[in-house]
Amino acid sequence: MEKNKPTRPEGTRDFSPEVMAKRTYILNIIRTVFQRYGFLPLETPAMENLDVLTGKYGEEGDQLIFKILNSGDFLKDLPANAMEMGAKKLAPKISGKALRYDLTVPFARYVVMNRGTMTFPFKRYQIQPVWRGDRPQRGRYREFYQCDADIVGTKSLLCEAEIVLMINEVLGKLGVQDFQLKINHRQILNGIAEAIGATDKFSDICVGIDKLDKIGIDKVLLELSEKGVSAEAIEKLRPTLTLNGTLQEKLAYLQEMFLASPTGQKGLRDLQEVFKLLAVFEKAPDFPTDLHIDLDLTLARGLSYYTGAIFEVKILGVQVGSISGGGRYDDLTGAFGVPDLSGVGFSFGVDRLYDALEELQLFPAEATVATQILMIGFDEETYQYCMPYLYTLRQAGFATELYPTVEKQLQKPMRYANARGIPFVVLAGSDEKKAGEFTIKNMASGEQKRVKAPDLIAFF
Amino acid sequence: MEKNKPTRPEGTRDFSPEVMAKRTYILNIIRTVFQRYGFLPLETPAMENLDVLTGKYGEEGDQLIFKILNSGDFLKDLPANAMEMGAKKLAPKISGKALRYDLTVPFARYVVMNRGTMTFPFKRYQIQPVWRGDRPQRGRYREFYQCDADIVGTKSLLCEAEIVLMINEVLGKLGVQDFQLKINHRQILNGIAEAIGATDKFSDICVGIDKLDKIGIDKVLLELSEKGVSAEAIEKLRPTLTLNGTLQEKLAYLQEMFLASPTGQKGLRDLQEVFKLLAVFEKAPDFPTDLHIDLDLTLARGLSYYTGAIFEVKILGVQVGSISGGGRYDDLTGAFGVPDLSGVGFSFGVDRLYDALEELQLFPAEATVATQILMIGFDEETYQYCMPYLYTLRQAGFATELYPTVEKQLQKPMRYANARGIPFVVLAGSDEKKAGEFTIKNMASGEQKRVKAPDLIAFF
Repeated sequence: MEKNKPTRPEGTRDFSPEVMAKRTYILNIIRTVFQRYGFLPLETPAMENLDVLTGKYGEEGDQLIFKILNSGDFLKDLPANAMEMGAKKLAPKISGKALRYDLTVPFARYVVMNRGTMTFPFKRYQIQPVWRGDRPQRGRYREFYQCDADIVGTKSLLCEAEIVLMINEVLGKLGVQDFQLKINHRQILNGIAEAIGATDKFSDICVGIDKLDKIGIDKVLLELSEKGVSAEAIEKLRPTLTLNGTLQEKLAYLQEMFLASPTGQKGLRDLQEVFKLLAVFEKAPDFPTDLHIDLDLTLARGLSYYTGAIFEVKILGVQVGSISGGGRYDDLTGAFGVPDLSGVGFSFGVDRLYDALEELQLFPAEATVATQILMIGFDEETYQYCMPYLYTLRQAGFATELYPTVEKQLQKPMRYANARGIPFVVLAGSDEKKAGEFTIKNMASGEQKRVKAPDLIAFF
Repeated sequence: MEKNKPTRPEGTRDFSPEVMAKRTYILNIIRTVFQRYGFLPLETPAMENLDVLTGKYGEEGDQLIFKILNSGDFLKDLPANAMEMGAKKLAPKISGKALRYDLTVPFARYVVMNRGTMTFPFKRYQIQPVWRGDRPQRGRYREFYQCDADIVGTKSLLCEAEIVLMINEVLGKLGVQDFQLKINHRQILNGIAEAIGATDKFSDICVGIDKLDKIGIDKVLLELSEKGVSAEAIEKLRPTLTLNGTLQEKLAYLQEMFLASPTGQKGLRDLQEVFKLLAVFEKAPDFPTDLHIDLDLTLARGLSYYTGAIFEVKILGVQVGSISGGGRYDDLTGAFGVPDLSGVGFSFGVDRLYDALEELQLFPAEATVATQILMIGFDEETYQYCMPYLYTLRQAGFATELYPTVEKQLQKPMRYANARGIPFVVLAGSDEKKAGEFTIKNMASGEQKRVKAPDLIAFF
């Protein structure tokens, strides 16, 4: 690589002003909703001590953690033959810190370090980048943002109901109309395994369910059969995984199915309570007519730490994958020696939301950060004539620029205004100056208008 | 270290909700001002390719760059005796990426990669963390935020004038009244060296000037003498470095001093033009009476890439160091093979601003993100009675929570409201429910008031 041609690391992005404007539009809506629901912002450092992260994401995840080389002489305390231990064993000896891989583990670390002074339940949101050494591909980056909201320290199912409302509110404000909020419950999945007599095959069944979308029901059941699930169990599983009908029909089906499964009954009661709470909220006059919620028994989500309700949201009509997901967990901080801290959380995928809004053309015109007004002076005198008004326009809240050089020709400043998408140009020639006026040009319509200088703000 | 007790890396911080609220308050003001002046947001990745960063910050800076260990088998292509080359030489062979050290080099890299499609002048601001392996100490962190604003592609001195205005506007909005905006010019410093006949000792003189604050004029001059600056030159330097008086007096002094120094004259003309432009702005009716600006001939700023005006801002009455600084440079992208791109930029130090505002007690009460209203239900019925109003209050823009569990006693929810700093509690007992009312308690005054349920929003 030629020294003079700088490049950007694979899988990373620069966010140009145009992209920043759209991302900020999304994040502001998410932030507003999080805050209205009582979540407070938290930020943790990009670097965590390596031992805080290791062992939390499985063998494969551990390999994807970006490790930071120790400062100074990182070889100092190593034996001469240290290289023989191989990269995997050597890595933790020369790098004690690493980049955060998600926002959940740093949050758990924060809770453990601060639990003495915290009041529970604690509701936090966190919007920060995370880093993973995945192979970069379309829509998958090595640096990407997560937007997490979690409530820890309460088992109240109001939290689950409120997550449903928050997802609806965010997507509603973003103008997304067609989406599906799938909900399921880890104990319903347990109950299904119990009811079909395959409790010992629970994880195989979950792995299978996760693959339904990709390989279809027949192949999933075939694989389960190969893994030792009995023919009888598979016979019972098929109608459950292909269950259709209204919410009430599905609930009734499970009621029947779980007659002999206490675990399933518990999961079912939880979800029924969530639905009941949502129905209570419905009495609000401004409540949406449709919460887009669907009980989906084929929703398993890979993450094994979920123990209660699980969520997943897909926007219909676009191929961006799920844009939100989450669930309840019983043991956020167990890995750090603080057991029994229950919570529930969910997360928005900003990159996928961005792609979906782009595809659906849902970004409003205001999702830009362009300067609103460009002033142009044609000579030293008119250039200076602009300045006090430039100041006043800014004070009045308008993003305003004066083209920084005196230009006798309009060409350069106009090209600048066009390239920047600046909607209004304010021209000051010697005519205007003499009359104490300005000429305002609407760049979209081409229309021009003379106004008295003191009326400039009133015009905008 | 015990496995179960997680810690945070030295020199890094968690930002709790309280701290986040205050930081957001500062950053929003900075962002608003940047945008009103026509600056557009840009973000670059945390990681840069190591060769983009190396050699840009001097030998010492290079050592402070956090390097990221290559993913996978980073030992693969190394000879068996690779460790013998030592940490310094081995590092770039096992880490191809590093964390950004400032926002200027990534910005230069961005400009070089995108210059084909960019319109100049380009005004960007960038607010992101940077990482440096400095020894942590009070006020110095290994992860800290920079807020840069730069205009590249123009030599117009309007930019310098606007930087003076922006600094005044940000500090004004933050309520800081006592501050000093020092301005100087690299060519004035050159001119001084020229005028005292010590052109060849220019960098020694700059280094000396940078130390004035710490060791005083006598020691600085003694050191310069030891470095070979002639007694005659030192004789002339002393009155310049101790110059007092009004701006006009200082300018007159330099005019006289630079009669034989064309470089000095150029620097002086630049600053005079900046002052002239500021005087033109003064005609705005809402212009501040004092810009807190001072021509300070002892301002040198260590950074050698500045070639024109240089700035530095100190808040008086607090010991936090300079909270803003910057200057004009001729060659942003020269290191990447794109010469002659001139620009001017400046930066706010958020951490120091934060400390200063804290010390001066300038954070307003609104710089919090607390929930505004906590609703409390005493039994299942009143708990549900709250829900539709909870929804409506949130829709109306109030950050509102319902205490997530039914509590027969007020103690727990009230402790929660107090710990969170929630100003209003809305109580719903069976009395209230029967009457279709709520009891609102003002937590500061202790005052209670019954209101009709539909009047709840009107009350707030």
